[in-house]
Amino acid sequence: MREIEALWEEARELSLGNSGGVERLDSPPTPLQFLRDFVSPNKPCVISNATRHWPALSSWSHDSYLTRALSSAHVSLHLTPNGRADAAVPINSDDPSTLCFASAHALRMPFPEALNLIVNPHSTNFVAYAQQQNDCFRSEYSALAQDCDAHIPWATDALGCLPEAVNLWVGNHLSETSFHKDHYENLYAVVSGEKHFLLLPPTDVHRMYIRNYPAARYSYSQDTGKFTLESEKPMRCVPWCSVDPYPSPEAKHSAMSRFPLYFNGPKPFECTVKAGEILYL
Amino acid sequence: MREIEALWEEARELSLGNSGGVERLDSPPTPLQFLRDFVSPNKPCVISNATRHWPALSSWSHDSYLTRALSSAHVSLHLTPNGRADAAVPINSDDPSTLCFASAHALRMPFPEALNLIVNPHSTNFVAYAQQQNDCFRSEYSALAQDCDAHIPWATDALGCLPEAVNLWVGNHLSETSFHKDHYENLYAVVSGEKHFLLLPPTDVHRMYIRNYPAARYSYSQDTGKFTLESEKPMRCVPWCSVDPYPSPEAKHSAMSRFPLYFNGPKPFECTVKAGEILYL
Repeated sequence: MREIEALWEEARELSLGNSGGVERLDSPPTPLQFLRDFVSPNKPCVISNATRHWPALSSWSHDSYLTRALSSAHVSLHLTPNGRADAAVPINSDDPSTLCFASAHALRMPFPEALNLIVNPHSTNFVAYAQQQNDCFRSEYSALAQDCDAHIPWATDALGCLPEAVNLWVGNHLSETSFHKDHYENLYAVVSGEKHFLLLPPTDVHRMYIRNYPAARYSYSQDTGKFTLESEKPMRCVPWCSVDPYPSPEAKHSAMSRFPLYFNGPKPFECTVKAGEILYL
Repeated sequence: MREIEALWEEARELSLGNSGGVERLDSPPTPLQFLRDFVSPNKPCVISNATRHWPALSSWSHDSYLTRALSSAHVSLHLTPNGRADAAVPINSDDPSTLCFASAHALRMPFPEALNLIVNPHSTNFVAYAQQQNDCFRSEYSALAQDCDAHIPWATDALGCLPEAVNLWVGNHLSETSFHKDHYENLYAVVSGEKHFLLLPPTDVHRMYIRNYPAARYSYSQDTGKFTLESEKPMRCVPWCSVDPYPSPEAKHSAMSRFPLYFNGPKPFECTVKAGEILYL
């Protein structure tokens, strides 16, 4: 274990830095700088002033613009009771220690209806999040194509290929993404609002307490206004991170004793990405 | 073991190719191409026409030029009985199965004397090889500095730093380097003659039969004209590759049965680097 802890330190000393922050660039890098200083060493960075020229930066702040542009679009909306989809959660509230991997209740509806549910969370007993990861910006949301560049030129040159997928996520402050890993080079551009990230390098994998959880799916009943969690049949196991980095005050003591490698180890890298900024990760 | 063999295949299919050859470029790449297509994916390549403008390409073919330019230089010369320094060899000829890691007999002498021993191997009972890896081109051989560029600009831009060391090796056709790994990005420029390489990707490490060998050093006696191998005291073990890819006809059967992963696995990547070419590896 001591060797692994030394590895955590070395990854920070040699590559990512010990500040706990993510490096920031005031303007887009050249393709060579981007590849050499960030992509090759697998080092995240936040790039400011990279998308200021996108019409989306101003127009998408107005719900009326989006509703008009997407008046006839049908989009995927994901519902959860608490904003935590694709996370390890108790399979029933009486027994907080038996966890499952819970997916959202997914449904399709006209975009204007979906947006209304997202921006008015207090009028519902669920948290709504519009997403569909399979290149949805170029399918469900293709009516917005002219509001953004089709790709990010310095990244395209650095990586030697156009984006394989362009996804759009529309949510409110209640949506939260649990710790996960992506197999892709990601450029995460915030167009409106902001998103807060906690990042850990791959050398910290042991701090994630990855365990197999049985897959389940939320089912929302419009009649009762309640969610039930339905286990997948036949059972399927999903290896997932066990750690919630922000446990509730009453759960904190238990979380710290169950996940000491996370809570007693080095702090994750934190950054808040604001409208007009891109996070490379 | 089957998983590891699948890994060998995948490394070839996804990255290095199945031709058994090394990719060749007819002219130097841009820094971005070099970083993106070769350095980032850890893929070797041979670049032609990269050093044609170096005066060394013509002047170093003349021994008289080198002898004059380095008339007062003292250089390191490494002697072995067979051209195989830093290799696993039998510690005594009566017992071919007990191997040690043998270093050369090293001595310093005026460059003109050293060159004479290198270019006239048949007048001696040893193989001489001028080398000293600690940045020797910028120290022992600094009188030749103006014959080459001080660095390779497209590689400097791609890697974001000047060379940490520039080494020169001067040998004849009898010198042979055993399988080894380097922890560095290397650009190997051949100025005169040619060098034949066998390359294996890191995923093939299991095929190398790396074992610990006790360190020993050749000692050459001018009186007897004979080499003895002296074990280091106290004993020091060196982890080294056990495989000689070109066993003698009489040793071949035994080598193939002792190192089946090497001899029955995919062929190593072969390339011959000629004067004026650079191998990136």
